[in-house]
Amino acid sequence: MKLPRSTVAALGPLLALSGAVRAASAPPPTMADVLAAAKPSDWRPVDPENELSLELSTGRVVIELAPAFAPEHVANIKKLVRAKYFDGLAFLRSQDNYVVQWGDPDADNRAEGGPGAKARPIAPAREKLPAEFTRPIAGLAFTRLPDSDGYAPEAGFSGGFPAARDPKRGAAWAAHCYGMVGVGRGDDPESGNGSEIYVVIGNAPRHLDRNVALVGRVLRGMELLSTIPRGSGALGFYEKGEARAPIRSIRVAADLPAASRTDLEVFRTDTPAFAALVESRRNRKESWFASSAGYVELCNVPIPVRAAPSSAH
Amino acid sequence: MKLPRSTVAALGPLLALSGAVRAASAPPPTMADVLAAAKPSDWRPVDPENELSLELSTGRVVIELAPAFAPEHVANIKKLVRAKYFDGLAFLRSQDNYVVQWGDPDADNRAEGGPGAKARPIAPAREKLPAEFTRPIAGLAFTRLPDSDGYAPEAGFSGGFPAARDPKRGAAWAAHCYGMVGVGRGDDPESGNGSEIYVVIGNAPRHLDRNVALVGRVLRGMELLSTIPRGSGALGFYEKGEARAPIRSIRVAADLPAASRTDLEVFRTDTPAFAALVESRRNRKESWFASSAGYVELCNVPIPVRAAPSSAH
Repeated sequence: MKLPRSTVAALGPLLALSGAVRAASAPPPTMADVLAAAKPSDWRPVDPENELSLELSTGRVVIELAPAFAPEHVANIKKLVRAKYFDGLAFLRSQDNYVVQWGDPDADNRAEGGPGAKARPIAPAREKLPAEFTRPIAGLAFTRLPDSDGYAPEAGFSGGFPAARDPKRGAAWAAHCYGMVGVGRGDDPESGNGSEIYVVIGNAPRHLDRNVALVGRVLRGMELLSTIPRGSGALGFYEKGEARAPIRSIRVAADLPAASRTDLEVFRTDTPAFAALVESRRNRKESWFASSAGYVELCNVPIPVRAAPSSAH
Repeated sequence: MKLPRSTVAALGPLLALSGAVRAASAPPPTMADVLAAAKPSDWRPVDPENELSLELSTGRVVIELAPAFAPEHVANIKKLVRAKYFDGLAFLRSQDNYVVQWGDPDADNRAEGGPGAKARPIAPAREKLPAEFTRPIAGLAFTRLPDSDGYAPEAGFSGGFPAARDPKRGAAWAAHCYGMVGVGRGDDPESGNGSEIYVVIGNAPRHLDRNVALVGRVLRGMELLSTIPRGSGALGFYEKGEARAPIRSIRVAADLPAASRTDLEVFRTDTPAFAALVESRRNRKESWFASSAGYVELCNVPIPVRAAPSSAH
């Protein structure tokens, strides 16, 4: 079994881990060691009010919303979800090494003189929203990554989301890493409203940072999104005659019966255990590695997710 | 049509491009402008001796080999290909946000006391190879990216491949960007021989740089590899009972009849036109962008590929 090794998939269920708290003389911990030694308090539950269950024909995708970064977008999306706006809509686009995107296939008619007779109504959600591409640094907890970042003066994590800051401008924003969820928009920065949503499925398109409202992160089910057949049209849009993967439904987890929720926990990003995890990725100590980078790029830091211990899921 | 925009897919066929050489007073060019203004000499053909055609049930994947970085690995792989070693083998692994990997399903038996009775013979290719993880800087053309890189003192391009250098150590290496092709190995750095090959399908795992021999890049067909259903086992390996996508055949393009080759051209990375392309990605001028990064990460620089103008493919 010859590998390029990856001890634990960032977004999938954790592997069975061996080992426990290490003796002081032991070699530096690997990520597996860090997770094995973690306390229950190193994990946090996901608030069901901020969790979306996206039901596809292939299974369920679970998204954690990030109201700290784009509160009005998150509120609008929840209004759309609760109005069942997305149920029966479809993926419009799957562009390799970039994004998948879903929405209303009939909404494009809006561009041709008005809101498209067949398009679903957005109301009671709002048609336009403020461009929540950045937010003030003040009031946002932030754990800085020790390494430099090309796209921002500071990179790090906030509330379990990859993020960045520019102290000179007093601005913070969520970062376009793999699995991040954002809101499509037109050329007008205020034209996004949450009725078209994309998920990053390729190399982190960090040039989109500060250009789009990011609203969350996929916690489970990325493999269902990343394998959706690519569209053959420009930008990965599907052309006539191609099958668009359907959206069966989207629900706020809080609205689901408790038994059908996916109860997850996310590894906290503001703890000594997370700092140890970051260090284990900066300097890889698994026996396979011949050479270590002494560096980790923001989007290469896994933010582990697991089933809540009290949950049967 | 609400988007996060990407003007041209890095690895797919180019979109139809409008515009031509710009007037001196015109705004800075976009990548589409750069490509529209490019001369025939800004493109180079792919040497059929360095081109592999990987035939899957879903279509053809075209790989350009990189003998400048791993000559013995490339030579060994070509020996395996010409012995039809890979024909009828399969994908062993598909790990989300990481790699797909193919090889001999029976080769794992080697770990259990010997070279596995059912495993295909490697001969006449070599069983072990030197660890070609880096090479000397001397003799390797290199176009440096103007931006900093976290994983190496210098990042840039060589012969159409993303690469990096460490002048203090006199070492250069190919970089683990999306679509790069490498050779799986065990814990012994010299245990790779090219009989298991992986392709990066996720966020650039640059921590693998200098740990594995990279042997090429996928020029066409990445969307066939990136959508292979993920394996449910550890590290994305397929478990018993799961279907492994088959490899119909791999051929060196030079060995194919001319009519069945895929004649491609790759945008040169050592020209003023490529420098303009890089600049167009450092500062995005498309009307959609509200804010520009003034930076581009190595693996976010597209290296465009097109059908050779003389070709019918």
